[in-house]
Amino acid sequence: MIKIVEVGPRDGLQNEKSILTTEDKFQFISMLCETGLKTIEVTSFVKPEAIPQMGDAIELFTKVKENLGKTGVNFPCLVPNIKGYATAKSLGVEEIALFSATSDTFTKKNVNATVDETFDRMKEVAQEAKKDKIRIRGYISTAFGCPYEGYMGVDKLMHVTERFFELGAYEVSVGDTIGVAVPNQVRDYIQSLKKNFPVDKVAMHFHDTRGMALTNIHVSLEQGITTFDSSAGGLGGCPYAKGATGNVATEDVWYLLKSLGLETGVDIEKLSEASRFILSKVNKNTESKFLKAYLNTGKV
Amino acid sequence: MIKIVEVGPRDGLQNEKSILTTEDKFQFISMLCETGLKTIEVTSFVKPEAIPQMGDAIELFTKVKENLGKTGVNFPCLVPNIKGYATAKSLGVEEIALFSATSDTFTKKNVNATVDETFDRMKEVAQEAKKDKIRIRGYISTAFGCPYEGYMGVDKLMHVTERFFELGAYEVSVGDTIGVAVPNQVRDYIQSLKKNFPVDKVAMHFHDTRGMALTNIHVSLEQGITTFDSSAGGLGGCPYAKGATGNVATEDVWYLLKSLGLETGVDIEKLSEASRFILSKVNKNTESKFLKAYLNTGKV
Repeated sequence: MIKIVEVGPRDGLQNEKSILTTEDKFQFISMLCETGLKTIEVTSFVKPEAIPQMGDAIELFTKVKENLGKTGVNFPCLVPNIKGYATAKSLGVEEIALFSATSDTFTKKNVNATVDETFDRMKEVAQEAKKDKIRIRGYISTAFGCPYEGYMGVDKLMHVTERFFELGAYEVSVGDTIGVAVPNQVRDYIQSLKKNFPVDKVAMHFHDTRGMALTNIHVSLEQGITTFDSSAGGLGGCPYAKGATGNVATEDVWYLLKSLGLETGVDIEKLSEASRFILSKVNKNTESKFLKAYLNTGKV
Repeated sequence: MIKIVEVGPRDGLQNEKSILTTEDKFQFISMLCETGLKTIEVTSFVKPEAIPQMGDAIELFTKVKENLGKTGVNFPCLVPNIKGYATAKSLGVEEIALFSATSDTFTKKNVNATVDETFDRMKEVAQEAKKDKIRIRGYISTAFGCPYEGYMGVDKLMHVTERFFELGAYEVSVGDTIGVAVPNQVRDYIQSLKKNFPVDKVAMHFHDTRGMALTNIHVSLEQGITTFDSSAGGLGGCPYAKGATGNVATEDVWYLLKSLGLETGVDIEKLSEASRFILSKVNKNTESKFLKAYLNTGKV
């Protein structure tokens, strides 16, 4: 069984210009809950000024918790600091996602701290979460390359992964933030990760900016990775290359896995309905070639 | 060194609605000649009523021969029958492409003959070509699946490949006409092909209709395949799923090969210029995610 972590409502929408209503976001998440997806990242408890699309995080999560809390679906939320953590805890969030990167330039530009400083900041959150029995997932941005520093060596990835496990993360998601990872690099980096950490605690988070996501996922599967992040319909874009593709589409991942005989428990018809709904709200066509063909032919 | 067979001017344009002028097609081929591509399929000597886009085959090939004949580029042309062959020969075509498929329903619908009957028809052409020292390349459509018959078993592919080599083809191009091939199937089929035929005489021709082309090419490379067909900019579409993607884009293939350290001799800047030119003429955006990102960021 391969686990898909659906990041459309958070990572996807965050990179969409049109600000949606809480009702539309809730509707999208409700539809995703019907598909068989077991983990759906809901929102991010950041300052609304920083990311306006996440400005309704409290309202949205409350609605999700109230109405979908008994579906058995896991609803992680991103938490940037202790303030966001306090909010998340007060609302009954059961899993938080923390984030750092392998590039100091990237974290400085994003959160005004070096990579190591981001871990100093996260320490307090992680200690509280441990006490509160709230699960921690770690996101590593720029694992393969950085928009400012370019190619990122594997040593930096090892360092940041280790720091996340030290913090108590149950899973670390290795992110190809700008879609520059290529197959041989992916294979090499996973082989290094496997030497140091349990492979079932490492997830891969690919962007399809240069069309390489499925090949990278295929290589990852061959290396034993069992968890992948993706975004319904390919929702979201790439802030570092306007008009280019961002997160790999959940439908594309589904099709690759299905072709390999790997079970996901996801209903493609319901998933495509959820994607069509949200894409119509952000006024975009899907970036998923599989989804285009599926919607066109009505069959897999 | 990996060989790319550029099929944009023929297979790509054939699936575009806008009928271009001979001048525009010639300009496209001229630009492709500047990129380092060594094989560019120019046109098809079919009846203009059958494929209006190829209605200027004589004029176009003549212009190409006159102006680009000394570039060292190979300019194969598709030939459907002995009449087309006679025309091709009279114009000085040095390589012809013949075509069949693994599905009787497909060949019946396309050329009103069973698969075996297509070979009976091609026999005369092949004999003449041998006499005239004109190279033959064989195209096998529907190798992995047929729009009418669905999944196609590997035995049919073995049979048709053998028949093409019997005809005297120096290379056989195995076509995923409707973009349904998936990685395990590709690996299996190539392993069967390798048992029976020299791997360097087998080319793969993938369509990216369901986003699987690069993963299939990656698997093919691992199996030792060294020749791939592709279309500049992803020109063309899929007649079996309107609005869906057809031939894999040459830029996508280039990027995958480059990432693997495999040399093609192709200049990506010049290639992207040729693609931009022809896409503007057919009024379409590229289907290549890599090309989108490249045009957006100005770098690989």
